[in-house]
Amino acid sequence: MIVAETRVRSLPREETGLPEEIFGLDPDFVAEVDQALEAGQDEIVRELVAPLHYADTADLIESLHGEHRSRLIDLLRPDFNPEILPELPDDIRDEIIERFGYADFAALIEELDSDDAVYILDRLDDSEQAHVLARLPIETRTIVEQGLNYPEYSAGRLMQRELMAVPDYWTVGEAIDYLRSNAVLPEDFYVLIIVDPRHRPVGVVRLNRLLRAKRPVRLRDIMSTEMDVLKVDMDQEDVAFLFRRKDLLEAPVTDVSGRLVGRITIDDIVDVIDEEAEDDMLRLAGLSETSIYAAVWDTARSRVTWLLVNMGTATLAAAVISLFEATLDQLVALAVLMPIVASMGGNAGMQALTSAVRALAMKELTSSNARRVAGKEVMVGVFNGSLFAVLAGVIAWLFFSDVQLGMVIGAAMLINLVVAALFGITIPLVLERLKIDPAAASSVFLTTVTDVVGFFAFLGLATIFLL
Amino acid sequence: MIVAETRVRSLPREETGLPEEIFGLDPDFVAEVDQALEAGQDEIVRELVAPLHYADTADLIESLHGEHRSRLIDLLRPDFNPEILPELPDDIRDEIIERFGYADFAALIEELDSDDAVYILDRLDDSEQAHVLARLPIETRTIVEQGLNYPEYSAGRLMQRELMAVPDYWTVGEAIDYLRSNAVLPEDFYVLIIVDPRHRPVGVVRLNRLLRAKRPVRLRDIMSTEMDVLKVDMDQEDVAFLFRRKDLLEAPVTDVSGRLVGRITIDDIVDVIDEEAEDDMLRLAGLSETSIYAAVWDTARSRVTWLLVNMGTATLAAAVISLFEATLDQLVALAVLMPIVASMGGNAGMQALTSAVRALAMKELTSSNARRVAGKEVMVGVFNGSLFAVLAGVIAWLFFSDVQLGMVIGAAMLINLVVAALFGITIPLVLERLKIDPAAASSVFLTTVTDVVGFFAFLGLATIFLL
Repeated sequence: MIVAETRVRSLPREETGLPEEIFGLDPDFVAEVDQALEAGQDEIVRELVAPLHYADTADLIESLHGEHRSRLIDLLRPDFNPEILPELPDDIRDEIIERFGYADFAALIEELDSDDAVYILDRLDDSEQAHVLARLPIETRTIVEQGLNYPEYSAGRLMQRELMAVPDYWTVGEAIDYLRSNAVLPEDFYVLIIVDPRHRPVGVVRLNRLLRAKRPVRLRDIMSTEMDVLKVDMDQEDVAFLFRRKDLLEAPVTDVSGRLVGRITIDDIVDVIDEEAEDDMLRLAGLSETSIYAAVWDTARSRVTWLLVNMGTATLAAAVISLFEATLDQLVALAVLMPIVASMGGNAGMQALTSAVRALAMKELTSSNARRVAGKEVMVGVFNGSLFAVLAGVIAWLFFSDVQLGMVIGAAMLINLVVAALFGITIPLVLERLKIDPAAASSVFLTTVTDVVGFFAFLGLATIFLL
Repeated sequence: MIVAETRVRSLPREETGLPEEIFGLDPDFVAEVDQALEAGQDEIVRELVAPLHYADTADLIESLHGEHRSRLIDLLRPDFNPEILPELPDDIRDEIIERFGYADFAALIEELDSDDAVYILDRLDDSEQAHVLARLPIETRTIVEQGLNYPEYSAGRLMQRELMAVPDYWTVGEAIDYLRSNAVLPEDFYVLIIVDPRHRPVGVVRLNRLLRAKRPVRLRDIMSTEMDVLKVDMDQEDVAFLFRRKDLLEAPVTDVSGRLVGRITIDDIVDVIDEEAEDDMLRLAGLSETSIYAAVWDTARSRVTWLLVNMGTATLAAAVISLFEATLDQLVALAVLMPIVASMGGNAGMQALTSAVRALAMKELTSSNARRVAGKEVMVGVFNGSLFAVLAGVIAWLFFSDVQLGMVIGAAMLINLVVAALFGITIPLVLERLKIDPAAASSVFLTTVTDVVGFFAFLGLATIFLL
């Protein structure tokens, strides 16, 4: 562990005002801008907005409404920061296209990095996309079109085409002179990618390594060949996994023939990780990608499908119960207790299922250990099933003074918790095998199983042993 | 959009074998190592393990068991890569301490970056921690102890003490000479942090900017003052939020007096983002941090608390049903239908709740828009409640040929979905206000409410209107 000492000589120096940390936008600030817009004080609005980070400006645009939003967009137009665009939701980007026109919008796109340009063009509808593409300079257009041709969620979509690649026979001095002389460089880069004459990546040199080396040293002598090379068609989840696992900062991307075509940097990966984690969590609750800013109607509609499916499964469970109407008619205590069995099964199953979904996403659960993990889950189901069988049995016995009723609910509880564990681990594994996102449909299958089995086991056992 | 052309002259060059992408460990490979260990072929084991990335080595150690794991650890000992340590679960680290002894373990810690050292020491039990600390050189010990004194989940815990800071009156040439002459540098850094004479950060210079500038230029003239400075006591979730929002790569950390004490880099943040997302998802299902490698017994125990709570709430719901035993006795159809009402309420509520938990984590849901979002959720509840009221009503009517029963279940469905929406959004907001993690306890509160309200509304209305 080495702590580098800084060498600071004591010279007097004025205090420097450091920028305050900003977490999202201060609601008072939004209100202030809103009022200034209302009062038509354009100059004040410009002064308020000027110092904002582009992410904050995007938030501000999003949190204003109607006329005020349009006015703000118009006010920002003379020096609109293109970095704002990728941060906005689709409908607001459409509004900006409408107000700015295709030519000006294309000019903004031209200023962005290629990955952001591809991201935005991809989200426009076909006619808008064609209009904007037509107004881009030919080189940019080619690059964006190539990007759009890569499959969705692939490394090709994610990568930036802007990169720093130099031949391996160069010296450190040549590389530094090249960097100094060359105005057209990507805005940010942390490594030099070293390529062979066929433009295939053979190593990387981190900039701090380059800075510390002497000028005559050859790049091939200081380059690290332990690098991970991504293929354009790699899935973004796999890319993210590799970045995380290997603590990568930047990785070269090659086409099918192994030629270097782009690079992916960790800041793009952060967004992917965020999205994937969010997707899993939302899908388990039957939500698609969602914005809390979305309108009531859109939100309601986006949730209906899931509720419809659930309505179907709940009706199925009800149909199971109706098989036992005669039994229920004779022993109403069963109606009181049966939701306990179903609810416990659902919860225990969701525990197994959520941990399986997460482990699949983290690639900790694989075909090689699936059998062992499944066996473990079933054992957990047996343990906890036994525990809650006793507990539910005792409660039922005390409450209804009926020891046989207690035994029936206990047996049903054990059965349902073991079944819940088995399905909780199996459903995501099967969906993964079928190349369906395990988070997407798992929980509805699971609760169907636990409801049906719970009601059937409890009421069935009751019919046999209690009547 | 600028695409830097690389200048590659055509010189013949041998093909370079690029490393294959590795996703987790190949199960066949693990089996091969396992067999070699079984057969006592130490040399083969060493050859197999030598080319692995430290993350893969850690995985390999984790996936072996008992004797074989111990043998592998012993075989790796002569040149054990310290980077493996942070990747291992606590119990395996304990085994390594046991086998290596405190002195050798401390020597490995000494080679790690300070943030990793603090992370590992923090997870040892008190006596182990004291033993290892006692064997660290005094400077390292001081740094680790300082790190351990920062609150858990704070920027102070996360930061690395190793950093590159230089005074602002230096020139580019001076900085480069300093880097060249100085062997004791942090292994990786992407920016120079520029400090004033009181050691407070006043700006940053990205390395690629440094490389491109001429030697006589002063750092203060090329430094960017638009940087975000973190405080040691900042919560790691807030740090992650800032990195994401501002696309930061590295940020300086200052103590209370504003002096530079460390830096946080984006690769640490990736882990934080991952953890926080995982926590939210697992907590919604009542799981604590969990490993699929954990033993059956530990897994079962870790899930019992949640199931106990759920048993309590399910019993509460059963108690509500038992209030209406007389009603159920007269009309057994109610027992068949009542789970539908409760289940739909639970699902609709979880949709509102999950989207609120996620929006809170992303700081999109704040006190300023809480009222508006809550209003929207209730409206969504009214829309979808009406839709499913009609649907459930028609199903009940057709199934039991009883139009009044259909109207009762419809009314109960509407009530329960509106209540579910209201509580789905309110519970996480209240927990957040009370500084309780909204993901931790939300879903159990919610399903209690939707069960109780669902059964009460349906059976209550039935008692009034159907008997």
